[in-house]
Amino acid sequence: MLSAAELEAGIRLACLAGMAGDAEIELPERGEASILSAGPESLVEPDPLVRTVQHALRAPSLEDQADDESRLLEALAGSIDPAPRRVALAALPELAQSLREGPALRAVVADGEVIGVSSDREASRALGIGVDLGTTTVVAYLLDLSSGDRLGSLSELNVQRRFGADVISRIEAAASAEGFAELRQGIRSQIAGMASALLAGAGAPAEDLIAFAIAGNTTMLHLLAGAPPGAIARSPFVPAFLSRRLESAAALGLASHPGCAAILLPGISAYVGADIVAGMAAIGLEDAEGNSLFLDLGTNGEIALGGKGGILCCATAAGPAFEGAGIEKGSGGVAGAIDSVWLEGGGLRYGTLGDIEPTGICGSGLVDALAAFLDCGIVDVTGRMIDPDGIVEEGIGGRRAYLDRRSGIYLSQADVRAAQLAKAAIAAGIDTLLEAAGCASSDVDRLYLAGGFGSLLNARSAARIGLIPAELADRAIVVGNASGSGAVAACLSRRALEDCDRVRAASSYVELSSRPDFNEAYVERMMFPEGA
Amino acid sequence: MLSAAELEAGIRLACLAGMAGDAEIELPERGEASILSAGPESLVEPDPLVRTVQHALRAPSLEDQADDESRLLEALAGSIDPAPRRVALAALPELAQSLREGPALRAVVADGEVIGVSSDREASRALGIGVDLGTTTVVAYLLDLSSGDRLGSLSELNVQRRFGADVISRIEAAASAEGFAELRQGIRSQIAGMASALLAGAGAPAEDLIAFAIAGNTTMLHLLAGAPPGAIARSPFVPAFLSRRLESAAALGLASHPGCAAILLPGISAYVGADIVAGMAAIGLEDAEGNSLFLDLGTNGEIALGGKGGILCCATAAGPAFEGAGIEKGSGGVAGAIDSVWLEGGGLRYGTLGDIEPTGICGSGLVDALAAFLDCGIVDVTGRMIDPDGIVEEGIGGRRAYLDRRSGIYLSQADVRAAQLAKAAIAAGIDTLLEAAGCASSDVDRLYLAGGFGSLLNARSAARIGLIPAELADRAIVVGNASGSGAVAACLSRRALEDCDRVRAASSYVELSSRPDFNEAYVERMMFPEGA
Repeated sequence: MLSAAELEAGIRLACLAGMAGDAEIELPERGEASILSAGPESLVEPDPLVRTVQHALRAPSLEDQADDESRLLEALAGSIDPAPRRVALAALPELAQSLREGPALRAVVADGEVIGVSSDREASRALGIGVDLGTTTVVAYLLDLSSGDRLGSLSELNVQRRFGADVISRIEAAASAEGFAELRQGIRSQIAGMASALLAGAGAPAEDLIAFAIAGNTTMLHLLAGAPPGAIARSPFVPAFLSRRLESAAALGLASHPGCAAILLPGISAYVGADIVAGMAAIGLEDAEGNSLFLDLGTNGEIALGGKGGILCCATAAGPAFEGAGIEKGSGGVAGAIDSVWLEGGGLRYGTLGDIEPTGICGSGLVDALAAFLDCGIVDVTGRMIDPDGIVEEGIGGRRAYLDRRSGIYLSQADVRAAQLAKAAIAAGIDTLLEAAGCASSDVDRLYLAGGFGSLLNARSAARIGLIPAELADRAIVVGNASGSGAVAACLSRRALEDCDRVRAASSYVELSSRPDFNEAYVERMMFPEGA
Repeated sequence: MLSAAELEAGIRLACLAGMAGDAEIELPERGEASILSAGPESLVEPDPLVRTVQHALRAPSLEDQADDESRLLEALAGSIDPAPRRVALAALPELAQSLREGPALRAVVADGEVIGVSSDREASRALGIGVDLGTTTVVAYLLDLSSGDRLGSLSELNVQRRFGADVISRIEAAASAEGFAELRQGIRSQIAGMASALLAGAGAPAEDLIAFAIAGNTTMLHLLAGAPPGAIARSPFVPAFLSRRLESAAALGLASHPGCAAILLPGISAYVGADIVAGMAAIGLEDAEGNSLFLDLGTNGEIALGGKGGILCCATAAGPAFEGAGIEKGSGGVAGAIDSVWLEGGGLRYGTLGDIEPTGICGSGLVDALAAFLDCGIVDVTGRMIDPDGIVEEGIGGRRAYLDRRSGIYLSQADVRAAQLAKAAIAAGIDTLLEAAGCASSDVDRLYLAGGFGSLLNARSAARIGLIPAELADRAIVVGNASGSGAVAACLSRRALEDCDRVRAASSYVELSSRPDFNEAYVERMMFPEGA
């Protein structure tokens, strides 16, 4: 299966290579990841928690010898609410130095504390960065905190991924002190580097950056904060912290100057993290009329149901099938991935990301293909592949249904089983939340689909394979990177931050592993629905 | 004047040696400094700002998955007032780790924040250190924060003294970045080392230390905090900060574990610092009946007058004469220093510290000697040395009056002039405060003498030479190291801390350099009083 050149370059198939001793293994990147950086752009009125205030202090004299800190706090008391109570230790040197240069100061104020001081230069701006810190990808948005403008954005694959694709493998790697340090330092340096690149792109000096607002799942935020995540992976799944935190960005290794804060957004539980809270806050789930279902589907499917009685949420281990992993010809959402499949003129048709030759099939393509196979009878309701028209072939590991014979892209019987398990987990999660809320799926007024997979997902196909209730196919709203939008809003606005806190307070976590009704629903949902 | 052995050892007289190029000069220590570490021991009911709380947390379960931080804060809410609001970033790793070892925790709480967490071990104690951070000496007291017991104390000469004896030379050295860094690091390492030594002496592990409370003059606290002190030395003499601060001891380089706080006590002005505030709070000046005068005499004389209308205070540059510097045969308060002089049977008698052969004369000896010389007519009211009985000799630099011919200890005419300047500065400061308060010296009910020199000072001699008003000779109370006592109390008790804040709030600083009446009084007080 490998060319001579590939073999020459040291490429081997992991499934066929034996390990004869310690070895270093490099995983080649397959194509540019198309990382979703757009999210719902809501109009956020800038009123940031971390802000700059310009003020010219009265000059001291022999009749008025008040210390620098007192004079600054007195001056700020009138211009900012709540009035700051102290100047941080790290800002004292800047305060004393700036005041000797002139009376005009620019103070960085974070929630009652002056964290940075500089001489008031005309060109200086107050910039912030909203971060969506995902297990797979990190997206950062540079913001002008005065105007609310987005000045740039940057997405990168999370450098921690060499420790494993999912949070559990990261947590396992963090069990050793060295692994923990490497994971922590890795993500801190990555975000710091992304911030530098964004600032350079905007022609801004480092000191203009005064705040980060960071959404991420609970494990990612633990690794960033340096809090051991071990207990997240073991029953009863207890994180070290969940509340919103305001820290020094320098203490987190994200900035080298003291006048920059980092807000870590609040999470709900070990597996429903700040990314989900930020996403729900961004779309206003806690204030929406009627009942809203929120799905963020990835390796873990996070599901929330918002209604009059608050928000119920859960997380189900869907497995990586919808991320294209564990699927024989699977692929992430990269150029060349088949992302949509449909029946046309009695035959299968497909589209690829970037409209280039197909190299594999990603999550949304998998769901579409299954829906099409169900519709044309290649897969029956139990998930068994049958062969009405000679499309299905016997391969090495079992049956295969080809989407494209020329490029060799197919789904195997094992792929269908993996997809069945994944969709059953999510569907059963939805069932359990509806049951817990005493609500039928027809009572749900809208279904928000968040995240990369959700953005590409065809809701009708999802309903066809039983991933979502049939009634919701027409009520689906794709919200893109809602977590990123939430982080941006939280950086820009105190109200948005409070919305996150309100979402957290309104949310109850439903632990599926302790519920018999979940297991029952899980088994039931393993089947595919009958066709319409 | 030097022996052959001394010359061999490289010892030279600085007044006679010329500098031919860059040279490294070592100043030999002359005798063990007898550093005053005792202060007024008031009964302080332990109720520290930084404290430990033991608590066994309820175990998490699948039905109760609250994060570690929330469970700890909820548990502490009942046991401590005010209830802590958050766990510090640096304490999250300890929190997560300790809880995995067992439910019983020991939390270190500082003013609403949990700064340290450990498993609750039976032997662990909550220890604090009160520090009197002086320009010349550093004194540290190890305290049991539960019982209030003093477990040990340690005094050292301030390592910064190689940059100069007084605060002005330290401030000048701090003008360069390297000098500033060296001064800052020097004192931080010194205090950290003293803490380690005290803990080792008490057989306590580093983690038992949870708090420092530090009193010091404004310059010393600036150097410790890393705040540039430059503006303290230039009119209008503006410090960077004066308010009480609560910092992480690790951030100040005083401790290596996160669960230790450092309280910097509040000061009043550039030259009336936290040491004076702590001293006044320790003796209860703000609540004393009637009028109280407080003197802390050293290179700077700090003077405070407390009465019904609050506290007026000032600082006068007395010069180092009372520290024994600039006096030909002067000496610090070390063994062998003549510390008392009196007339007996028509002749001069003296005592030395340690009752050994005299090696010089310290401040209190100088005051006594002057009083005796005035009484027996060797010095007249203008300060001129006269020679009624052939005691006075002509030396190289002018007249000399010998205290002891055999050991060659004398006061010179120049020494008398230096003492006149010093006592005039202090007496004029007292006059100015009394004037500002509309109060006569006879209205003063008590005079507190604080600091090393004050503790040895004979109040009658001080009155005789006009250093203090004559009426107060019998109303003097020696309070020893009041600043150290104040630091100890502040470490042990929130009320004592609040007393410091109240003293600060009740105090008004009188800037002598801008007052014509001070200059007038200064010239007037240059004369010695007529004898009784």
